[in-house]
Amino acid sequence: MTEEKRELKENSVGVVQTQYFTFDDLALESGENLSPVTLAYETYGVLNEKKSNAILILHALSGDAHAAGVHEGQNNPGWWDSMIGPGKAFDTDKYFVICSNILGGCQGSTGPSSRNPKTGKPYALDFPIITIGDMVNAQKRLIDHLGIKKLLSVAGGSLGGMQALKWLVKFPWKIGSAIPISTAIKHSPQQIAFDEVGRQAIMADPHWKSGNYYGGSSPASGLAVARMVGHITYMSDISMAEKFGREKKEGTSNFKFTADFEVEGYLRYRGDSFVKRFDANSYLYITKAMDNFDASEGIPFHETLGGVKNLLDFWALSAKVLVIAFKSDWLYPAYQSKEIVKACKLSGLEATYCEVNSTYGHDSFLLEVEEETHLIKHFLKKVFHNYEVTVDYRI
Amino acid sequence: MTEEKRELKENSVGVVQTQYFTFDDLALESGENLSPVTLAYETYGVLNEKKSNAILILHALSGDAHAAGVHEGQNNPGWWDSMIGPGKAFDTDKYFVICSNILGGCQGSTGPSSRNPKTGKPYALDFPIITIGDMVNAQKRLIDHLGIKKLLSVAGGSLGGMQALKWLVKFPWKIGSAIPISTAIKHSPQQIAFDEVGRQAIMADPHWKSGNYYGGSSPASGLAVARMVGHITYMSDISMAEKFGREKKEGTSNFKFTADFEVEGYLRYRGDSFVKRFDANSYLYITKAMDNFDASEGIPFHETLGGVKNLLDFWALSAKVLVIAFKSDWLYPAYQSKEIVKACKLSGLEATYCEVNSTYGHDSFLLEVEEETHLIKHFLKKVFHNYEVTVDYRI
Repeated sequence: MTEEKRELKENSVGVVQTQYFTFDDLALESGENLSPVTLAYETYGVLNEKKSNAILILHALSGDAHAAGVHEGQNNPGWWDSMIGPGKAFDTDKYFVICSNILGGCQGSTGPSSRNPKTGKPYALDFPIITIGDMVNAQKRLIDHLGIKKLLSVAGGSLGGMQALKWLVKFPWKIGSAIPISTAIKHSPQQIAFDEVGRQAIMADPHWKSGNYYGGSSPASGLAVARMVGHITYMSDISMAEKFGREKKEGTSNFKFTADFEVEGYLRYRGDSFVKRFDANSYLYITKAMDNFDASEGIPFHETLGGVKNLLDFWALSAKVLVIAFKSDWLYPAYQSKEIVKACKLSGLEATYCEVNSTYGHDSFLLEVEEETHLIKHFLKKVFHNYEVTVDYRI
Repeated sequence: MTEEKRELKENSVGVVQTQYFTFDDLALESGENLSPVTLAYETYGVLNEKKSNAILILHALSGDAHAAGVHEGQNNPGWWDSMIGPGKAFDTDKYFVICSNILGGCQGSTGPSSRNPKTGKPYALDFPIITIGDMVNAQKRLIDHLGIKKLLSVAGGSLGGMQALKWLVKFPWKIGSAIPISTAIKHSPQQIAFDEVGRQAIMADPHWKSGNYYGGSSPASGLAVARMVGHITYMSDISMAEKFGREKKEGTSNFKFTADFEVEGYLRYRGDSFVKRFDANSYLYITKAMDNFDASEGIPFHETLGGVKNLLDFWALSAKVLVIAFKSDWLYPAYQSKEIVKACKLSGLEATYCEVNSTYGHDSFLLEVEEETHLIKHFLKKVFHNYEVTVDYRI
């Protein structure tokens, strides 16, 4: 135990602080404007003199800016602490790592629970529709603010992977590489359906009140059900069987049966703890942004990427892509990752595909640390090597 | 259209009527007693003189006694009309087919919405805990009442398949064969988890009122969400993609986005129509019975079936098993059906396994009519041939 703790400390970025960047005006893809916009963010490691070692980490649906280290006086490490730190996949001895809470979120960045300057009250459903493109535009403003002209890489899983794809399509000259993990060019009807069930559960909760619940009771029951559905889809049949079996727990039921299966208690616990930290309206806005996302922008994705390739060629630049999928991920099945790789290859973009033989389901991108570290470390090293030469004189 | 209609009529059992059988007392597996008990049931075809041609059809979670034909003045055929009728899989020219609504149901059989004779009010959560064994015991009383000593076969999908397995384990000398389709010896944690989310959605609905909603508003929103979750698990990624794609529908959203994906509207429609015909408390009791079900009764299933085989051997009887699974069924994956077959083989019971290459997911057992008809017709013919010889003199 003591050994473990010391090791954690040695490989940790240590105590970190969330910072805030506020800017005046963001033109949204819907045509609306949002003002002001705040992004909560954290950084780990040191930006080198050439500003060529910056990596942007992109979080998933329930993530936040706190990706690594611990906050003063608290014990819980960031959501990807196993991957970000000295000697880790995103090696903070070498790289300057940034993670910001997405636009529309509820962990410090502007979202539906933020104050609407026009009314002085929380936006609620007056918050404009946002897209993953809007999230990426806001992130670019943060990168500009930090004085970074080009990112060594953008990386993330799930919704984070969608953002990575959007960076590749929108600002290819601004990135040296992209690492989309456990993600898709666009949601399948099944993925949309699971999101929709979560939204329906929230909106069926009478406390939701068409989104105007701030200051009163929140739609906690509905959000908890949404989170439970989510959790099932994040795991796999096998990982659930390994974790829970059919073990029963005494005296925890809220139905008339005294004994519950472990898995039921676990889901309720995860549902209940989620509502303490997450805003139901953010859940609606973000899942809608995911469902509406289409990296291929209405044409075949290899054609979209063809345009990216032409642009990069024109400037004699390159952007490498590392796509990672997990065998047991049935929410974002490997075939969706293969579609990304296929489109890259067809367009002439350099892409590597790795399918990791994990049993953790969609959660694998958070849990398969050893495999991911191996893949990403090596990939970043290669990109960084080529990249230092070209970054300064061209842009 | 006319052609189609005529054909439907020619192959239909025609107008049918639901009947009711009430008996005094049922000793439940929990130790409690239930009295009185009513089972709603329908029959199709004619019972032969030897009473050797009776087949019991076992319905799934949302099914009922109305398995074939139409009710007077109504158009909607029974839930397995494509499989039951003259010349069909369960050929009513040859066989006498029975289907009853399960104990705990809400379509005419005694369940939580029935009148509690002690209070004069609906049972609600005073309804005792029921098991699949209890459902089968009640069905046996109905069979006795109909004067049938032995069933040619018991057949059903999903929860229906569990009942078929229970018949095999509990009353092997009472059946000539069992056809468990798209089912499992016991639920995996993932299957329990999906059920639990449905239950949580119902119980989170303030109209649920700890089950005491009869006479007032029912927990319709919660039940609709439960049904939506169910529907996703009944389909497959592919069948959803084929049915809906990413098509959008204008002006149907109840969130602030004007355009919805087709799949969202479909799920809402299915959720809303379900609440009109189904009781939320029945949903709780039946899904709990499914989650608690374990055909293997705590020992390896082949040992349970070993006991069955010994018993059958002692009386020089036999019971054949036909197990059907569908490739795209991820709710009751084929590996669970293979476990049934393996246990049969290990115990010496005669079992046939068929895995149908369908894309419809769990719904396949309702939709893959042609394949199922082929398999079941042939199987029943063989069983019937051997069975007529042995049925009378022994029991």
